[in-house]
Amino acid sequence: MRPAVEPPDRVRDLLARMTVEEKVAQLQSIWVGVDEGGGVAPHQHDMAVEPVDFDASIKHGIGQLTRAFGTRPVEPNLGARAVARSQRQIMEANRFGIPAMVHEECLTGLTAWQATIFPSPLCWGATFDPVLVEHMGAAIGQTMRTAGVHQGLAPVLDVVRDLRWGRVEETIGEDPFLVGLIGGAYVRGLESAGVVATLKHFAGYSSSRAGRNFGPVSIGPRELADVLLPPFEAALKDGARSVMNAYTDNDGVPAAADESLLTQRLRDEYGFDGTVVADYFAISFLQTLHGIAQTAADAAGLALRAGIDVELPTVNCYGEPLLAAIDAGTVDIGLIDRAVSRVLTQKWQLGLLDDDYSPEPDGPVDLDPAASRALALDLARQSIVLLQNDILPLSPGARLAVIGPRADERHAVMGCYSFPVHVGVHHPDVPLGVSAPTVVEALSNDYTVTYAQGCPVLGGDDAGIAEAVAAAEDADCCVVVLGDRTGMFGAGTSGEGCDVADLRLPGRQEELLEAVLGTGKPVVLVLLVGRPYEISRQADRLAAILCGFLPGEEGSTALADVLSGRVDPSGRLPVSFPRTGAGHPSTYLAPSLGRRTDVSSVDPTPLFPFGHGLGYTPVTWLDADCSPSWPTDGVCRLSVTLRNDHDRPATEVVQVYLHDPVAEVVRPVQQLIACSRVTLPPGGTTRVDFDLHADLTCYTGLSGRRQVDPGTVELRIGRSSVDMVSTLSLELTGPRRYVGFDRVLRPTQVAMPIA
Amino acid sequence: MRPAVEPPDRVRDLLARMTVEEKVAQLQSIWVGVDEGGGVAPHQHDMAVEPVDFDASIKHGIGQLTRAFGTRPVEPNLGARAVARSQRQIMEANRFGIPAMVHEECLTGLTAWQATIFPSPLCWGATFDPVLVEHMGAAIGQTMRTAGVHQGLAPVLDVVRDLRWGRVEETIGEDPFLVGLIGGAYVRGLESAGVVATLKHFAGYSSSRAGRNFGPVSIGPRELADVLLPPFEAALKDGARSVMNAYTDNDGVPAAADESLLTQRLRDEYGFDGTVVADYFAISFLQTLHGIAQTAADAAGLALRAGIDVELPTVNCYGEPLLAAIDAGTVDIGLIDRAVSRVLTQKWQLGLLDDDYSPEPDGPVDLDPAASRALALDLARQSIVLLQNDILPLSPGARLAVIGPRADERHAVMGCYSFPVHVGVHHPDVPLGVSAPTVVEALSNDYTVTYAQGCPVLGGDDAGIAEAVAAAEDADCCVVVLGDRTGMFGAGTSGEGCDVADLRLPGRQEELLEAVLGTGKPVVLVLLVGRPYEISRQADRLAAILCGFLPGEEGSTALADVLSGRVDPSGRLPVSFPRTGAGHPSTYLAPSLGRRTDVSSVDPTPLFPFGHGLGYTPVTWLDADCSPSWPTDGVCRLSVTLRNDHDRPATEVVQVYLHDPVAEVVRPVQQLIACSRVTLPPGGTTRVDFDLHADLTCYTGLSGRRQVDPGTVELRIGRSSVDMVSTLSLELTGPRRYVGFDRVLRPTQVAMPIA
Repeated sequence: MRPAVEPPDRVRDLLARMTVEEKVAQLQSIWVGVDEGGGVAPHQHDMAVEPVDFDASIKHGIGQLTRAFGTRPVEPNLGARAVARSQRQIMEANRFGIPAMVHEECLTGLTAWQATIFPSPLCWGATFDPVLVEHMGAAIGQTMRTAGVHQGLAPVLDVVRDLRWGRVEETIGEDPFLVGLIGGAYVRGLESAGVVATLKHFAGYSSSRAGRNFGPVSIGPRELADVLLPPFEAALKDGARSVMNAYTDNDGVPAAADESLLTQRLRDEYGFDGTVVADYFAISFLQTLHGIAQTAADAAGLALRAGIDVELPTVNCYGEPLLAAIDAGTVDIGLIDRAVSRVLTQKWQLGLLDDDYSPEPDGPVDLDPAASRALALDLARQSIVLLQNDILPLSPGARLAVIGPRADERHAVMGCYSFPVHVGVHHPDVPLGVSAPTVVEALSNDYTVTYAQGCPVLGGDDAGIAEAVAAAEDADCCVVVLGDRTGMFGAGTSGEGCDVADLRLPGRQEELLEAVLGTGKPVVLVLLVGRPYEISRQADRLAAILCGFLPGEEGSTALADVLSGRVDPSGRLPVSFPRTGAGHPSTYLAPSLGRRTDVSSVDPTPLFPFGHGLGYTPVTWLDADCSPSWPTDGVCRLSVTLRNDHDRPATEVVQVYLHDPVAEVVRPVQQLIACSRVTLPPGGTTRVDFDLHADLTCYTGLSGRRQVDPGTVELRIGRSSVDMVSTLSLELTGPRRYVGFDRVLRPTQVAMPIA
Repeated sequence: MRPAVEPPDRVRDLLARMTVEEKVAQLQSIWVGVDEGGGVAPHQHDMAVEPVDFDASIKHGIGQLTRAFGTRPVEPNLGARAVARSQRQIMEANRFGIPAMVHEECLTGLTAWQATIFPSPLCWGATFDPVLVEHMGAAIGQTMRTAGVHQGLAPVLDVVRDLRWGRVEETIGEDPFLVGLIGGAYVRGLESAGVVATLKHFAGYSSSRAGRNFGPVSIGPRELADVLLPPFEAALKDGARSVMNAYTDNDGVPAAADESLLTQRLRDEYGFDGTVVADYFAISFLQTLHGIAQTAADAAGLALRAGIDVELPTVNCYGEPLLAAIDAGTVDIGLIDRAVSRVLTQKWQLGLLDDDYSPEPDGPVDLDPAASRALALDLARQSIVLLQNDILPLSPGARLAVIGPRADERHAVMGCYSFPVHVGVHHPDVPLGVSAPTVVEALSNDYTVTYAQGCPVLGGDDAGIAEAVAAAEDADCCVVVLGDRTGMFGAGTSGEGCDVADLRLPGRQEELLEAVLGTGKPVVLVLLVGRPYEISRQADRLAAILCGFLPGEEGSTALADVLSGRVDPSGRLPVSFPRTGAGHPSTYLAPSLGRRTDVSSVDPTPLFPFGHGLGYTPVTWLDADCSPSWPTDGVCRLSVTLRNDHDRPATEVVQVYLHDPVAEVVRPVQQLIACSRVTLPPGGTTRVDFDLHADLTCYTGLSGRRQVDPGTVELRIGRSSVDMVSTLSLELTGPRRYVGFDRVLRPTQVAMPIA
């Protein structure tokens, strides 16, 4: 992390010359075309005024342009030219010729028509492969740059706490180390292309009551520090230049008004010098939803003071209300200067203040180039998780009944922030924009396939189920493809605003599965889901279970590759699959009393645990060893040796968990502190060395500071959070140390072939 | 609250003369007969050593005797004589002749064979009648005194946060004001008889993850202060002399080791000078379950330092381990003296140190006297909640099919701390000990009744359901009695350790209800439950719904009184009834974003809200008025006038909710600040005047202190938390005030007939 620096001379000069109106304009964004198409942001239709008077909005300049590509279907080259035209108008309208920053959503690739739809973040987590995710981030960033977009509103670093939350599909998983590792890789990729990554949602959003979107959060400072914040710290160190607030309140204080979070923590403790942008309409929500501001001006004052620099997506509070508050003396001009300085410094960093800056596109825009598709396929292949298997790969020549509402549906592989789901759904006459085969199509290349839908994701009738049973009876094997219809604000079964009350498969899908099982044919269940569901009532009767967490435009191809055996499955679960009757919230990151106990009749033990995933080619674990002692300010070298006894490549994900039996406060039974995805050639042996710094054992003690304690700990090394191969007990030696933001967050590691 | 006082001379003298062994003995308890019968405490069989060597245990004296009546069935007079014999042995064995304190459970009456089984605490809450509950507390205390018991481990003041928790039935409800009002009344009653009331569980237990017993808690300090602690503050002001820790950790710190809670908060801030006793085995659990102590000695040191004075129920840590720690210098003798001084001061207050103290019973012991039974009946009658009604009272002469697993079962009305459920279940050959008619028996006095079980609470077969349907088809009306089998640690569907994953009726009961509904006969649903369940799939087809929250030995009689119309139902819900698909946790005490919103697809709106309950005789609300302004340090007079237009008495519960539209932090949309149960004579008019002190509007602001803010608030006055009759807007005037433990917690109120 770069230390907070003085703004450059150019920015200081501008600040000295700008009027209050010109300054405040830099904290604003405008959203042209917000009324075209459906709702993509909460309360969009209450909050956004249409039509936008563009000329009037930019007369003092403007900080940002909102969603030039993600509001309606726009041909990418036309879109890029429209952005350039807007930029010219903006530069001409203000005295200093300052262009706007253009921001877009880019969670599963740029949310634009004809842009590559990459696998969703749970898939990134499932790969356990930061290198590949970094490549993806870079690819996304490069296409955004060609389109004139400067800032991407991704990644989501919320750590899953309750699977019922609709936004689980936007997250990387339930472990803070994994979320920080993979999320940080995405950030490095995006930023490597010169695009500003925006970490969201800072902080607490995923812990809302019962997983309901925007629901109140009430967590203690230790859980915040030890579970929810570490991914943000990791990604800031990886170079993220923007942060977005969480919509939620924690213990009564909305993040958008939380100075202790946005300023004391983020600026003073972490040294962050980028921008903090509001989640859409979040400043207004301080007044309209949270009830902590009487007026829009009060809301503006609270947010600005707390540390929100830019209001998105439109001007509701940081316009006339803020100017009136400055006039009235209730908001200090120093707070305006603080925010404007950050905004202009970022524009300066991006070259937007350069004399020779030109908004024109460099050349033709291709948002779905072949290299991106290839990367999307690689990621999808690595992300498919084989949960259980008695039958795969499928025999060549098998006659398949491919059944289920997700089997022949193009949207089935797409997350809620993909363009077709996010925007395209409101434009049914516009083509999809990218090629995205269905599972039926992909399998038809290899097999004789009979398709029956059975039932839609929601609803359906007995006739449909009967038809599916008939198809099953004529087949050698059934592939039942079930899952979510992703969508926004109640339009789907997963996605933003699509929370659920329990974790049963939506609609009649479980009934369909039972009906197909009733035929006695072997059944392979393929899930295309935004969250894990209860499948424990059927699991022991299924011939195999594969899970794809919305694996993107090449997802069905990847599934066919795995089903046919062309590709070995190698994904590992970034979230646990619940057991029926387990009760939520519940994640693997639990202390002893958060797991199965003798004192509660409810057993939260998952059906498939965090980190679980099978392959077709099991790897042999030879040994695991580590240095006998571990200085509290030093490194422990852990070595794990693996061998592939087969005649095809094999992949393993080595997972290292820390168990600390006695500490000053209650700790999780175990938590991931290192992992390594290793692919071994046929017959090959590989040693993985991890240098584990003692900082990785730190936790927030009674004093409220992070500490590294001397004493006995265990390293548990295994194939999942349950399937341990080695348990090494070792002694941390030396004095207790207190550590801060500069602590070591990841091990260094190297995998080397040794035979 | 009495200020912390110096110990009396007698205690100072003892402290000066006692050896360390004698002091430590006063912090201990012994449990004779712990292996007789089944488990009544968590991990009882791992933790308690048997047989107890009584003579060896008492050679330095002993602080407490554990459960002399509640361990196995003991005839009360024999039990009292056995206690007296033990006391004589103890007094003879120690140099100072100090007897033990004898403690017992007494949640629904003394947990002893042949003792009155009062309605469970949710019933107390449902009465909204602190006067009646205070009488009950006094009656319980009086019988305890006659039996030689000094301390009662009740009431439970945990505020319900998650209905899935098995111990919901032990609580008074989901509103802190109501819990404090009713719990405080119980305390005044018990203490009026000279019995020490023990407030439990301090604090946080009810907020465990997913409502799982002992599960980790993570709540912020504001939620703790504004939701969970107020009932304890109220009951301390009402004179409670003992407090028991919660088993849970909050944000990593177990309550048993939380000095900030047990000492800074309880002693320094609240000025409490009674004893803090450990929940059973909770000190050991610091080592064995929480992992914050390496040894039993460490656990002892942590607990003693935090502020736990007495280890219950047996000596595991406060014996040899504690003595060794004192020897080793890791525990300061000053901490021992602090605890012993509190214990001896309490014994002194109870007269146990008096020279003329005699442990002999004063006379014959009757634990179920007629006056107690009458009180149990009164409470039960007032606690039955009529949720919905198209048909009641039942027509005289109706031929009833009384159906369901709770219809003809004596235990159906008993909470998990009643003797028959808690202990008697392990002694199946011992008679129940008290008379407790079933619903079938009670209704048979008035009606022609055909009974069919249909199915047990769990399990059952199709034949049973068919038999029930046949019974229904022959009847004029069906009364279907469904609900819980209470029990301990998985033995029941409700009770300690009997948590659930969702809120569907246990077993096949919903199926049974559907089958009976299928006959087309009118169906009255009677619930005998420890928690609300989802009944929304059937509610609109039911002719009436009555709810009894385990109403005690006279509960079935009370139900028959209500069903037949002899008694007007007048209970109000102390907990909301969930709607199907609502998702938990969820209680009425939620801010705007904790309720139904436009941004989540899950709607937590309850089927029947907090405070809801119908009668047969609706009361007419004439007007509600209040003073126009409300000084931040003064009182607002609210007057509500009601009239009974009928020719029989009518009861209403006037409920006053505060709504604060704008505050420094997010607040619940509304919370109860006053209530009054009013019974009007035929034709009568009554005015209820509430003097509401502005302290009732306080909340914990950003500074962490409780504050009373000037500004606009609303008083919402109604029949429930949803059914408002008047909304009065008024202005708090004057400066912001900060308030502490000495703030006004309840309004003064008077109901006067005016016509």
